[in-house]
Amino acid sequence: MKFLDGKWEKKECSFEELLSDHILNQQACVAGAIHSIRNMGEIAFVILRKKEGLFQTVLEEGKANVSVRDLKEAMTVRVTGTVSQEERAPQGRELLISNLEVLSSPAEPLPLAIDKWKLNTSLEAKLNFRSISLRNLQERAKFRIQEGLTRAFRDYLYEQGFTEIHTPKIGSRGAEGGANMFKLSYFHKPAVLAQSPQFYKQMMVGVFDRVFETGPVFRAEKHNTKRHLNEYTSLDFEMGYIDCFQEIMAMETGYLQYAMELLKKDYAKELEMLKVQLPDVSRIPQVRFDEAKQLVSEKYKRQIRNPFDLEPEEEALIGRYFKEEYDADFVFVTHYPSKKRPFYAMDDPEGTRYTLSFDLLFHGLEITTGGQRIHDYQALCDKLAARGMETEGMEEYLDTFKHGMPPHGGLGIGLERLTMQLLGEDNVRETCLFPRDMNRLEP
Amino acid sequence: MKFLDGKWEKKECSFEELLSDHILNQQACVAGAIHSIRNMGEIAFVILRKKEGLFQTVLEEGKANVSVRDLKEAMTVRVTGTVSQEERAPQGRELLISNLEVLSSPAEPLPLAIDKWKLNTSLEAKLNFRSISLRNLQERAKFRIQEGLTRAFRDYLYEQGFTEIHTPKIGSRGAEGGANMFKLSYFHKPAVLAQSPQFYKQMMVGVFDRVFETGPVFRAEKHNTKRHLNEYTSLDFEMGYIDCFQEIMAMETGYLQYAMELLKKDYAKELEMLKVQLPDVSRIPQVRFDEAKQLVSEKYKRQIRNPFDLEPEEEALIGRYFKEEYDADFVFVTHYPSKKRPFYAMDDPEGTRYTLSFDLLFHGLEITTGGQRIHDYQALCDKLAARGMETEGMEEYLDTFKHGMPPHGGLGIGLERLTMQLLGEDNVRETCLFPRDMNRLEP
Repeated sequence: MKFLDGKWEKKECSFEELLSDHILNQQACVAGAIHSIRNMGEIAFVILRKKEGLFQTVLEEGKANVSVRDLKEAMTVRVTGTVSQEERAPQGRELLISNLEVLSSPAEPLPLAIDKWKLNTSLEAKLNFRSISLRNLQERAKFRIQEGLTRAFRDYLYEQGFTEIHTPKIGSRGAEGGANMFKLSYFHKPAVLAQSPQFYKQMMVGVFDRVFETGPVFRAEKHNTKRHLNEYTSLDFEMGYIDCFQEIMAMETGYLQYAMELLKKDYAKELEMLKVQLPDVSRIPQVRFDEAKQLVSEKYKRQIRNPFDLEPEEEALIGRYFKEEYDADFVFVTHYPSKKRPFYAMDDPEGTRYTLSFDLLFHGLEITTGGQRIHDYQALCDKLAARGMETEGMEEYLDTFKHGMPPHGGLGIGLERLTMQLLGEDNVRETCLFPRDMNRLEP
Repeated sequence: MKFLDGKWEKKECSFEELLSDHILNQQACVAGAIHSIRNMGEIAFVILRKKEGLFQTVLEEGKANVSVRDLKEAMTVRVTGTVSQEERAPQGRELLISNLEVLSSPAEPLPLAIDKWKLNTSLEAKLNFRSISLRNLQERAKFRIQEGLTRAFRDYLYEQGFTEIHTPKIGSRGAEGGANMFKLSYFHKPAVLAQSPQFYKQMMVGVFDRVFETGPVFRAEKHNTKRHLNEYTSLDFEMGYIDCFQEIMAMETGYLQYAMELLKKDYAKELEMLKVQLPDVSRIPQVRFDEAKQLVSEKYKRQIRNPFDLEPEEEALIGRYFKEEYDADFVFVTHYPSKKRPFYAMDDPEGTRYTLSFDLLFHGLEITTGGQRIHDYQALCDKLAARGMETEGMEEYLDTFKHGMPPHGGLGIGLERLTMQLLGEDNVRETCLFPRDMNRLEP
């Protein structure tokens, strides 16, 4: 009988090995995709793309089992040869090929020049050829940084005593209500896709005290803007036994601090490649909603049209204000009007037209909505009644509150938006692997 | 202007603090839910449930601001008092209450006796009152262990150079084809929910070499068994530049080893609570599909009815066989028949009726399906043609292969099934927070 013991010897060297001292002037093997070929006549530079970056290999005519004429961009190959120092190569090292084995060969030329430093094409083309455009190193780097943001979220919250949960995406009704839900038929029963894990994460606060989830959410919003996706990844947490809603903001600030440190440590190459300046998150100002509106109205001579809502331009101006006045990249806007928040938001006892809630703006764009929730059963029923809302389909959610829930609150962070603002992108589709919008269902 | 700096001082002690040396005979504050009350007359034991476990507090009549008559199970409270040693208390410590503050009070008595060591009720009742039944310590512990399994998957794969991806759950068609897809209308276009991230993770192998995703998948299968869910969490990975499909199995074995170590280290309390015996994963046997059928047919005198499929009872017998013969909890069954695998599975060049694929059985139940995929464009087209399959909606997937893909393969692990088998549960609904089956869409 044969057994697997979890070990697997690879002939191919990792980047770390290729850049180590002991490999210099020794034979090594490396596998990768041919990213570009520079044919100089007697010799050709064959640049391989690997997960860690580019590695230069050199084909000298007559010294290997193949000729440069046999090679094409986008082939995947395994090469063997001698490693030497070469300052002009991407990693300061190159490999002189003695043997090249073709693992696969493309059927057609690439539709995009992915080996250019910056992919010089429209967003539309990038999305249409998504599996190709992402082979560009800069395009790819965005999603490595996105990984860092998600990873930091989880690792920070594990440290803070949170439990990770997986909640269903198909349900009988949505958390926020309203018309923005995708509907489907579930074995002949009407069902919807989850707009957020809101109800579930609250229910689980009664079990684990602190929970988080990183997963997809679905919004059938008829918005076709640069900031909206109809499916996105939400970083959600919910925490019990809070002293006040500012504690939730403190937790988010802690996460952002942790995330920036992780990016510096483990994603420095990608930050450098994209020339990302990490924001200062050592302290984040907080300002009341009504006060923020007043401040930007005065400074930028802009009339307040609707005292109960923030227009996108107002958000941008609040971002600008706090950058100019406090050199702040982020700002917490607190105490949103009750009528603009869902029923489960806790009203401010000091002024019930406002809620104990907040948004976090990053460079003038909302990336988080959060706040304290109602935890008292009767208060929840009263709020629902005052809004004239139906409770059908909410029975299990409401029952949870009959049986004791601690004071709690939480938030949701839009991962693609956070990435977009960090990278200074103009369109959220740039920071989503396979965006879904009103016109795009493929690839 | 006020700022958040990421720090937040809690009055309440963590478990770690409550069990530290310096707190002994000192004043401390602790918050939690009243899990049970044992009223002995002059004194009452008020057991608090916190995320880390139970903590005993003691109310002596006349020594605190409240009487035991004011207290109810499922209240959430914050108490202050003196910590002392008490061997009979759950953590070997207790707190003598001087002050008790009620944070919230239940509106109705609990529908289940969650303070029992083992929740003595039907699965149906547990699922109907999910947010209550999970407050039972044993029920809750299952999902802490599930967290460990997910966490280990990610952490191990990060170490192995994988990049985490988020792929869309709404698409224009499914990866496996067939009728088992939930259909929805996406802004008046027909759409389906993803059965698996298969196409996307393959496409991303051309970008990142190695990728993984942990997310929901949706199967509209009309199976109402103890092993099936219609929505579950899939731990998926896909890796390029593989030497052969056994390398994928080696990676999975490595993951399982890592996971068992993490559980031992960080989830010992939960393992102990549920009396879980961790399986031996130091080596996992592999056996060919046809050979496995033959072995169990001979040993258990069972006729082979269909040479191209494994019936659930046959899987169970294979599990039994390898337990009896090799004391193995896991077994890789390899070389599944081509006709039972999707079109993208790579046929075995040494016998094209079989594929370079595998399932992993854990105590006789399939928890993983994986294998090597076709990476050559023409071979993929030929296989689709041979099966008479339409390629409509697959254009971007297929185009990826026109432009060079390395040899690759991967797998998907059903998280709830893995948890179920590890815990020795009889029904996969026991290890899903909010299961979705043909009859259950709530809570």
